[in-house]
Amino acid sequence: MTRFDVVALDADDTLWHNETLFTATQTQFRALLARFRDPEFIDRRLYETETHNLRHFGYGIKGFTLSMIETAIELTDGAVTGAEVQRLIDLGREMLQAPVELLDGVAETVEALAERYRLVLVTKGDLFDQESKLARSRVGHHFSAVEIVSEKDARTYAAVMARQRVAPERFVMVGNSLKSDVLPVLEAGAAAVHIPYHVTWQHEHVTDEALVGKEFARLASIRELPAWLEGG
Amino acid sequence: MTRFDVVALDADDTLWHNETLFTATQTQFRALLARFRDPEFIDRRLYETETHNLRHFGYGIKGFTLSMIETAIELTDGAVTGAEVQRLIDLGREMLQAPVELLDGVAETVEALAERYRLVLVTKGDLFDQESKLARSRVGHHFSAVEIVSEKDARTYAAVMARQRVAPERFVMVGNSLKSDVLPVLEAGAAAVHIPYHVTWQHEHVTDEALVGKEFARLASIRELPAWLEGG
Repeated sequence: MTRFDVVALDADDTLWHNETLFTATQTQFRALLARFRDPEFIDRRLYETETHNLRHFGYGIKGFTLSMIETAIELTDGAVTGAEVQRLIDLGREMLQAPVELLDGVAETVEALAERYRLVLVTKGDLFDQESKLARSRVGHHFSAVEIVSEKDARTYAAVMARQRVAPERFVMVGNSLKSDVLPVLEAGAAAVHIPYHVTWQHEHVTDEALVGKEFARLASIRELPAWLEGG
Repeated sequence: MTRFDVVALDADDTLWHNETLFTATQTQFRALLARFRDPEFIDRRLYETETHNLRHFGYGIKGFTLSMIETAIELTDGAVTGAEVQRLIDLGREMLQAPVELLDGVAETVEALAERYRLVLVTKGDLFDQESKLARSRVGHHFSAVEIVSEKDARTYAAVMARQRVAPERFVMVGNSLKSDVLPVLEAGAAAVHIPYHVTWQHEHVTDEALVGKEFARLASIRELPAWLEGG
């Protein structure tokens, strides 16, 4: 017995590793600028530039790459070389081509879930990049719909449920971000399951206060999801 | 009497001006590099870089901006300055923020069409940027669905028609690009209307041979579309 028809899954850091890719690139970025500034300062300025640029560029690797270039110009007072800027573009391109590594348990769990539920992928980020990752992931064929969205707020989830013709009571969202995969889903009247990833992008952090009175499940691994759904 | 249920419309250079924005930016790009190379050479190298990068970056302004930076580094043998690279990023950001200018006749025609047909917007490019333009366009509310796709081929159109639950015989696509809005639509078994824009991005050009034996309508302005649909 289950009370859900549609199980929606986040992609980055829920199905496949993603934040670790950004972390690894950021390490190289710090090394490139090490002669100009200390690592903490570089990290802080990059994050500030990224945050400022989100409203223009949205989420994704291309915007991140432009933010790295802009930060490098600023931190070096324009002394960054053409070769170094080219290195940053190459880092971005390497991220876009990086192999898609599924998290432990994803392949078998998604396959099992697809037999009992309508699966919908709901992810933000760059359309082209996310489609490319899904195509390479080998789990794409288990999803009956793919929703790549520019922002994950309650309105977005309401629109997804409307398009999928499912009532909020029959919809559950599963993901690693409290800010994007849990809180707005609860606000839209549906259920949410949080499966934390070992690193969280600073932009996705939420305060403890934001969680007061919120009801959602937290699982250690996607392997626990089928049993939770059956019992839920 | 009409034989169509769904009228699908392209966005860039069909609903609003777009290519002119790229053309204007490219003029500034040439000026920035004028001391290194002649205009024709700059244009050719930029187009080659763009084309090469499409497979990594997809369509859109962020990818175009990264291609401008990469071309500038290459053409100057790395001598481009940080300030000049920053100028290119600023040009990209200005493009993303540029006002959305509807083509002549679009506002009233889209409004009139919405009363008789289910309108679907089908556009490629950057998800974030296209959503932002649609929101600013003031015609977004006339569309019952928005499909932002990474590539416009016959498979894409078949998927759009399946999602919209419409048979190919009841679907017509309208746009300025023979390559993206006409030929793949005919291949998918639906009808197509070509409304040329006064400039076409080189990447969208098709040969005369590709058009041999193809049946589609060509209109001078979107203003002629309602009458064509009624007579069709």
